[in-house]
This record gives sequence, structure tokens and C-alpha cells, in this order.
Amino acid sequence: MGGPVNQDRLWHTIEELAAITDAASPYTRRSFTDLHVAGRAWLREQFIEAGLVPSLDAAANLTGHVDGTGSGLGAIAVGSHCDTVPAGGRFDGIAGVLSGLEVARTLRENGVKLRHGFQVVDFLSEEPSVYGMSCVGSRALAGVLSAEHLAFQEPGGETLAQAINRMGGDAAKLTGPLRDPGEIAAYVEVHIEQGPVLESRKIPAGIVTAIVGISRTNIYFTGQADHSGNTPMSMRRDALLGAAKLVVLADELARALNTDEDYFVGTVGQLNVEPNASNIVPGWVSMCLEYRSNSTPARKSYIEAVTAHGKRIAEELGLKISFEAVSDADPAICDDAVRGAIRDACEKLQYEHLDMPSGAGHDAMHVARTAPMGMIFIPCLEGRSHCADEWVSSEDLAAGANVLYETVRALDARI
Amino acid sequence: MGGPVNQDRLWHTIEELAAITDAASPYTRRSFTDLHVAGRAWLREQFIEAGLVPSLDAAANLTGHVDGTGSGLGAIAVGSHCDTVPAGGRFDGIAGVLSGLEVARTLRENGVKLRHGFQVVDFLSEEPSVYGMSCVGSRALAGVLSAEHLAFQEPGGETLAQAINRMGGDAAKLTGPLRDPGEIAAYVEVHIEQGPVLESRKIPAGIVTAIVGISRTNIYFTGQADHSGNTPMSMRRDALLGAAKLVVLADELARALNTDEDYFVGTVGQLNVEPNASNIVPGWVSMCLEYRSNSTPARKSYIEAVTAHGKRIAEELGLKISFEAVSDADPAICDDAVRGAIRDACEKLQYEHLDMPSGAGHDAMHVARTAPMGMIFIPCLEGRSHCADEWVSSEDLAAGANVLYETVRALDARI
Repeated sequence: MGGPVNQDRLWHTIEELAAITDAASPYTRRSFTDLHVAGRAWLREQFIEAGLVPSLDAAANLTGHVDGTGSGLGAIAVGSHCDTVPAGGRFDGIAGVLSGLEVARTLRENGVKLRHGFQVVDFLSEEPSVYGMSCVGSRALAGVLSAEHLAFQEPGGETLAQAINRMGGDAAKLTGPLRDPGEIAAYVEVHIEQGPVLESRKIPAGIVTAIVGISRTNIYFTGQADHSGNTPMSMRRDALLGAAKLVVLADELARALNTDEDYFVGTVGQLNVEPNASNIVPGWVSMCLEYRSNSTPARKSYIEAVTAHGKRIAEELGLKISFEAVSDADPAICDDAVRGAIRDACEKLQYEHLDMPSGAGHDAMHVARTAPMGMIFIPCLEGRSHCADEWVSSEDLAAGANVLYETVRALDARI
Repeated sequence: MGGPVNQDRLWHTIEELAAITDAASPYTRRSFTDLHVAGRAWLREQFIEAGLVPSLDAAANLTGHVDGTGSGLGAIAVGSHCDTVPAGGRFDGIAGVLSGLEVARTLRENGVKLRHGFQVVDFLSEEPSVYGMSCVGSRALAGVLSAEHLAFQEPGGETLAQAINRMGGDAAKLTGPLRDPGEIAAYVEVHIEQGPVLESRKIPAGIVTAIVGISRTNIYFTGQADHSGNTPMSMRRDALLGAAKLVVLADELARALNTDEDYFVGTVGQLNVEPNASNIVPGWVSMCLEYRSNSTPARKSYIEAVTAHGKRIAEELGLKISFEAVSDADPAICDDAVRGAIRDACEKLQYEHLDMPSGAGHDAMHVARTAPMGMIFIPCLEGRSHCADEWVSSEDLAAGANVLYETVRALDARI
């Protein structure tokens, strides 16, 4: 797969940033830590070398900016995040920021002057941190980081607001969106898929249609913790039996909601049994049901069906059941013009591409509140992420940067 | 319900022994502790007052004995255990020992001279102790407490052998059965049902047909821990889905094995999910399947069916499954003559009675290797046991002692 960017140079930046890690637990560069600060110092130097002017906004998002030739135009922004989970990978988020950096270098190298300003953004703390919050910088950009969030404390007592200030931000100013309407003309984020679809189909570029809405509901079954030997089958109230029946049904119902239009996943990832002893009939089970879709009606009909089946199962088995809605976030729809530009970029490069939803949340989800947004997914090995094994080939990484380069040029020409 | 024993006197002994407890955690009198020693000192006094001669055997089982008038006859032994689990109850085991004590008192009071010797046995450490072993005394009586068991250590380093010696036993002599063949002509144990059947049917006496065989098998499902958002339903290998399907089937199969002849229970009491996070498809599930029956063929056919279904489910879902047989104990069948004597006792007393298996293990299970054995179950509140709420009414307790009294008399007349 050919293209304008410098594959080796891009790969080298991946290696350089990956080296800034807790050596005992690669790859660890958690937000707000000294390693994170060191990573940003390195990135700031890279921005400068690439002709980008670095700056921090009030949320301590690190931006490298170059002005465009036009006037009265918003900037074309690209980026993602450079922080990691503990013992995470070298590509999650990082691929988006460093692809943006490579695009800036290639534009300059090729003497391309964009009409729009161009900026690469490293959002603060996309991953959950010790402050118990994810997507800190992109939420703040969109003006949805609340005073309640800012008051979150890490175990030592430092608030998120104090931590943002320590990173060079100004939390007192986080009272509304950090960009004026139109200030970002479009935002494009390259990200590893963190799923198996592109790799299994050998397609280099996913054009994200929407970032799914995500809901979580805790479900509790209460039965009776009886002696497993002396309680006949007919006299039991087995909470795990009820939970198991609902796990099976929740899976079936989720499968049935997938259509040509709609993506749907439903998962019981967490399930705990009490008292969890081999000789006691389970008296209590908690489970977390998470379900995601680009379709809000599908999410609604799913939880209604699961609730009805759960109540029926509980009644049949003499159990009590209760439901606790934990969170409920609507999908973020990718902008048609940005999707079109990505598609045209792929066509120009003669890359195969696939329209697909993002089942995971990303900074782009929050940016969507203030700017037209699109995402480019690149394949990663076996969909693995958030682990040291996370892997993207140098070629696939460069292909993503090529698509980003051509997308930026296409957007610059038409918006 | 009338009968020969003194209901108030029996209840008073329950109260006296219950008072010997860790006051902070009633009712706690764990084997090998100072409280256990204090309880036994009290019991020894009771034996003497009832005309029983106390003695300790090499396993530190405490026996109160009175000779019979006949010669060349074995003793009729009754009993159970007086140790408790932490924060246990006032009746589990204790009901059997103190019913035996009350029978001795009533026999003497009524001037009844048995042909057989009569003895009340308080077996050592029926409950699991810090040495990691249950039924220590009854296993030793039967000669099946192995050198390996005797070498078990509590966290402080004392071996079970040392602990037995500290309680007055002589572990070096535990190399075979502690009673000669015929030395115990019959053994009868009164015990709380620890299940809901007798109470729910308002029947005062259960005539145990067999102590079930108990098997435990650990089952492991291995799938793939994928991101719950980006892994389409069709590409998942969800270990919990496989486990849930098998939990449902294991329950169905267990229900189907109950017949007029056979009692069967199958339980998944323990189930653990890895990584057990709401946004990760479960990659690994372990579960412990425990199954109990008076029928050994039923136990065998059950695990064969569960294994076959488990393999099929795993194959359908792209999972690996493995089975680990943890333990497998055959049932102990109650002696026909002892069962007949219990039945006749109930008839004489005009008590309703019910043939039923014991789903739990008891000292009688081990005694069965050296002597004809039977058990009398008495109702307990909601089947609750191993907790401070464990409860038997004074009337039901006395009824059990009455059945024991008449059973001993019937056995004395016919064996």
C-alpha cells in the first residue's frame, strides 16, 4: 500500500514514545504521572520540529498548531490521546496523535499549504485515571466536564481540578466549551479498531459511522442460600440459576438486534455469586449487563425485553430481581462530510475500506458536540488492546496516516 | 407429642452447653479450642451424673458408657458431635449428643436395664477445623484417618496429630479401626435435618435411608477476553455464556434424576468469572459442580451427561472446556435393622415419620464402616444451620430423643 507519509519515520516516533514507560510494566504512561509529563515534553519537541506551535488549553489538552492560508476558516483538527492504561499498549490513542504529527511533517515536506489551520491534539486523560474519570480533556473541550467531576479525588486527596492545573491547565476556566462554534471546522481521529473485524477481513481502513451509545444496568437476583445437600431441587430458590438463564437470553436478544443498519452488542462481563461456596445454593447474584448500539431505539427495546424476561424468570424460580440503571449514553453520529472525505481519501489511495460503528468510546465522541467529527479505524492484531501485546503493523499504521493525510487535504478543499 | 424423655431437662442441657461459647460470636465452640475443652469438661460431668463412665479413645472421642446385663453383646452407641463452626448453631451435632445423654438419664430413671452396653459418643471435630479436616474422630474410629491427614498443620504449625494428643488422644495408635468388629452392635445418630423437608411437611421424625454419595467436579471454560464494544456477537468466544448454558442444563439434569427411589441434587454453588469487568467479554470461567445422591449409578450418569453437554456447548461456542474431578465419596447406606427399629419406635410413639436421605455428611457415614448405622432427623427452622439462627423447638427436640429412646430399647430387644 503506497502513500505520501513516511512509514519508517512514523514507526520511529511510535518506538520513541513507547520507550517512555514504566520499565517494570510496559507500556505504562498514565495521565498526570511523571511519565505522562515526560511523554508530553517529548511530543512538544516533536510538534516544534514539525513546524507546529505547541500550546495548552484550560483543560491541559496539548495542541500543536499551524495557521492556514485562508481567513475566517476554522481549523482542521486531528488527534487522540497519548496516555495509557496500566500495562497498556503502544498504539491505543497514540496512533492517532502520531499519525497527525506525521501528516503535519508530510504536509510541510511536500510544501502543501492548507487553507485551514491544522492542529494535532493530544487530549488529556482519555483513559480512566486515579481520579475515576475518562475522556477528561475532550469532555472539557466540549464543556461537559462538570464541577462534580472536577471535585473527584485520587486516594491521596488531590482533586481532578488540582491535577489539571498541575498539568498546565486552568480548571477555574472549565465552565463551558473551550472552542468557539466553528473554531474547529472538522475533527478526524485515527484509532486502532480494538476489535477483530478489519484484521479478519484484511481491510486497512474502517470508516466509522457512529460511536455507539452505551448503557449499563446492574441486575440483582435474590434467592435463598440453602444447604446444597439437604435442599431438594424442588424446594430451591437458586439465584445463579436465574442469572444463568438471563445471561443466555441476554445474549440471544443481542444477536437478534443486529441488522444491516444496526450494530448491537450485549454483554454480561461481570457476575458475582454469594456466598459462592460449593456446598451452598447461591442466595444472591449480581451481574452487570452492558449493551451498545448505534441505534437508540434498539438499546431501548433491548433493556425492555431483558427486563421482562428477567422478571418472568425470577417469578418462575421464586426469586426477587431488581434492576439498577448505572449509565446511559447516546451514540455520537459521525459527520457525513467527514465520512465522505475519508471515503474519497481511501478511493484515491486505492485502499479497501469498510463502514463500521465504533463499539468503544473515544475522544471524538465528546468533540462531536462542538465540531463535525469522523474517525478512521486501523486493524490491530486479534483486536487486542489495553495490553502489552497490542500490535499494529508498521504498514497498517502508515496506511492509516495516509488516509488521514488525504482526508485532511480533501476536507481542506471542500469545507 | 408425648414420650418418655424429660423435655425440660433436655432443653436445659442445650442451654447450658450453648452458654459455653465465644460471647462475641455465638455460637462458637470450635474443636481443639479452650471453649471446646470447657464444653467437654461440662459434658463429662453430665455423663457422670447420668451414670455413664467417661473415657477418651485414641482419637479423643469422648464416650460415656454403661454396661449392659448381657454378656458377649456389643454396645448400642448413640451420639454425634459438640463442636461448632465459627458463629454456628446450638443444635447441629449437639442435638445428637444431648439426646443420647437424655436417653441415658431416662433409662436409669425408669429402672431400665439394657442387655447391651449403652454409650453416648461425642466425636472429635466433626466440623472442619484449622487443621483443614472434618469428621476427625469418626474417621479415626473407622480407621480411615490417614498419616497424611494426621500431618495436616494449622497456620501456627501444630499438626492434627499433636492437636489430637493435646485433646487427650494418642495419635500414634491411629493405625486401624478403634473398635473391634461387633464391639458396636449398632450406632444411632439424631441430627437436625439442615433442610426444609420435615418442617414444611410438619413431620417430627425423618428415618434416614442413606447418607448420599458426594462428588465435586471443577469445570473450566476458556474463551477469549475481548472488548465488549468492538467484538461483534458473531465473533465472540464468551466463557460465561458457555458456563451459563451448562448451569441451566446441570439443574435440569439433576431434577430429572429424582425418582421415588432416588434422591438427587446437583448444584453450581461456586462460579468465578475472569477478568470480571463490565466491558470485557468473559475469557475464563471456573465453576464447581457438586452432586449428591443415594444412587451411585445416578451420580455416574449425571456427570457423564453434564460432561457430554459441556463439550457440545463448548464446541458450539468456540470455547475450551476441562473437567477436574475434585472428590468422589460413595453413599453410606443405613442398616435395615436399625431403620426398622427407628420405624417401630415412631409407630409406638404414634409419631409421623418419613423415609429420607441425608444430603449432608455426618459422623454416622464413617461409623458405618465398623457398625450397623442409622440416623434420626428432626425438623429445624427453615432448614437453617451453621448460623446463630439455627433453631429446633423444645418439643421437636424432645420428640427426637423419644424416638432415640424407643429405638435403643427396640434394638436392645432384637439384636
